[in-house]
Amino acid sequence: MPLKISILTMFPSMFDSVKVNPVVKRALDRGLLELEYVDIKNYARGSFRRIDDSPCGGGPGMIIRIDVVMKALSAVRTPSSLVVLLTPKGRVYNQAQAHEFTRCSHIVLICGHYEGIDARIEKHVNLMLSVGDYILTGGEIPAMAVVDSVSRLMGTIREGSTAEESHENILLEYPQYTKPADYEGDRVPEVLLSGNHELVEKWRHEQAVETTKNLRPDLYEAYLRNVASP
Amino acid sequence: MPLKISILTMFPSMFDSVKVNPVVKRALDRGLLELEYVDIKNYARGSFRRIDDSPCGGGPGMIIRIDVVMKALSAVRTPSSLVVLLTPKGRVYNQAQAHEFTRCSHIVLICGHYEGIDARIEKHVNLMLSVGDYILTGGEIPAMAVVDSVSRLMGTIREGSTAEESHENILLEYPQYTKPADYEGDRVPEVLLSGNHELVEKWRHEQAVETTKNLRPDLYEAYLRNVASP
Repeated sequence: MPLKISILTMFPSMFDSVKVNPVVKRALDRGLLELEYVDIKNYARGSFRRIDDSPCGGGPGMIIRIDVVMKALSAVRTPSSLVVLLTPKGRVYNQAQAHEFTRCSHIVLICGHYEGIDARIEKHVNLMLSVGDYILTGGEIPAMAVVDSVSRLMGTIREGSTAEESHENILLEYPQYTKPADYEGDRVPEVLLSGNHELVEKWRHEQAVETTKNLRPDLYEAYLRNVASP
Repeated sequence: MPLKISILTMFPSMFDSVKVNPVVKRALDRGLLELEYVDIKNYARGSFRRIDDSPCGGGPGMIIRIDVVMKALSAVRTPSSLVVLLTPKGRVYNQAQAHEFTRCSHIVLICGHYEGIDARIEKHVNLMLSVGDYILTGGEIPAMAVVDSVSRLMGTIREGSTAEESHENILLEYPQYTKPADYEGDRVPEVLLSGNHELVEKWRHEQAVETTKNLRPDLYEAYLRNVASP
């Protein structure tokens, strides 16, 4: 079943470059993915087409109006849509959530901008999602991250290529090397040139465990819990 | 001092849309920010311009060659450059790191792609950075996230606008509202319409604490530790 992703944004042209990515392009060409861009500005009322206004109670910045966003949302939402608000206060996005998204038929991503959207929108969405603990000017880059991570799971990367990677099995990826075997005296580890498949696998697993333990103790502990569970 | 960011990528055209963002555009127009795109493909040798090759030791996917990336890096790196490799095994990006970046004069962002870059590159970078625990097809969207978050700190958002926001003070942002005061029976909280500045501030702080406690207990605990420290 193809996945349709509708993106509600004030800046649809920011997404022009999404198709440049060969993995996303392949998913689109194969009909596994459909992308729809909805310009929130088109749903503003009146001759001024005002989509935002100053915050109630005062303070800097502009807030996107609930009535405008709701009109845009109503235009694309269906009973089977999963409506996602991209916001710093959302659940932190991770690879498990990316996998869940591949089982949807329609996802609506609402991109906030600047100071945000009128908080009443939260009652009308199924999920609030954050891509990380850093502040962006809007939800457009997070929406690109969702489209990119989901596209690559939609059967577009060669079989076998996704299963071994970082985070999929909690562990970080083992280090990878390619030619030249000697780069200015820095050599590819001998075991990888040995042709001994069993030794290579063993080394890669050890490296993945070691890298994770050193760089991401939080993931390493989750890995230990997984290994310990029956 | 302006900040220059050089982006080493296989897909420079993915960044065409970065300038669409008004905040980034303003930082560029004011000379606070300079962006340079370096196409890694231009540094490939030979008539095939091969930039990647199969992994040593076998396995799926293609690995970007160390000699090609190093040639591209040498072309832009200066003694004062901070060289950042965007990789799932990097330190997780956050707002404190965004602030640190604003104090640099030159940042080089290296975007990996697909299965990755030959691991020997790690010895030649100052920092490895990840934007979150999800797998993307490449480092381009993470690079956009860095450019976006840093641009908004480069004095381009009105004074007062950045200090109050999510993560800056660890707490998530309080809910924001704008007109209409009544949307299909859903009213803006009365206190925000009271005109009593002190009550508004008190309500907003309580809401920020409550929201953080409910949605991000990890940030809430960090907040409590901060409050407790002298």
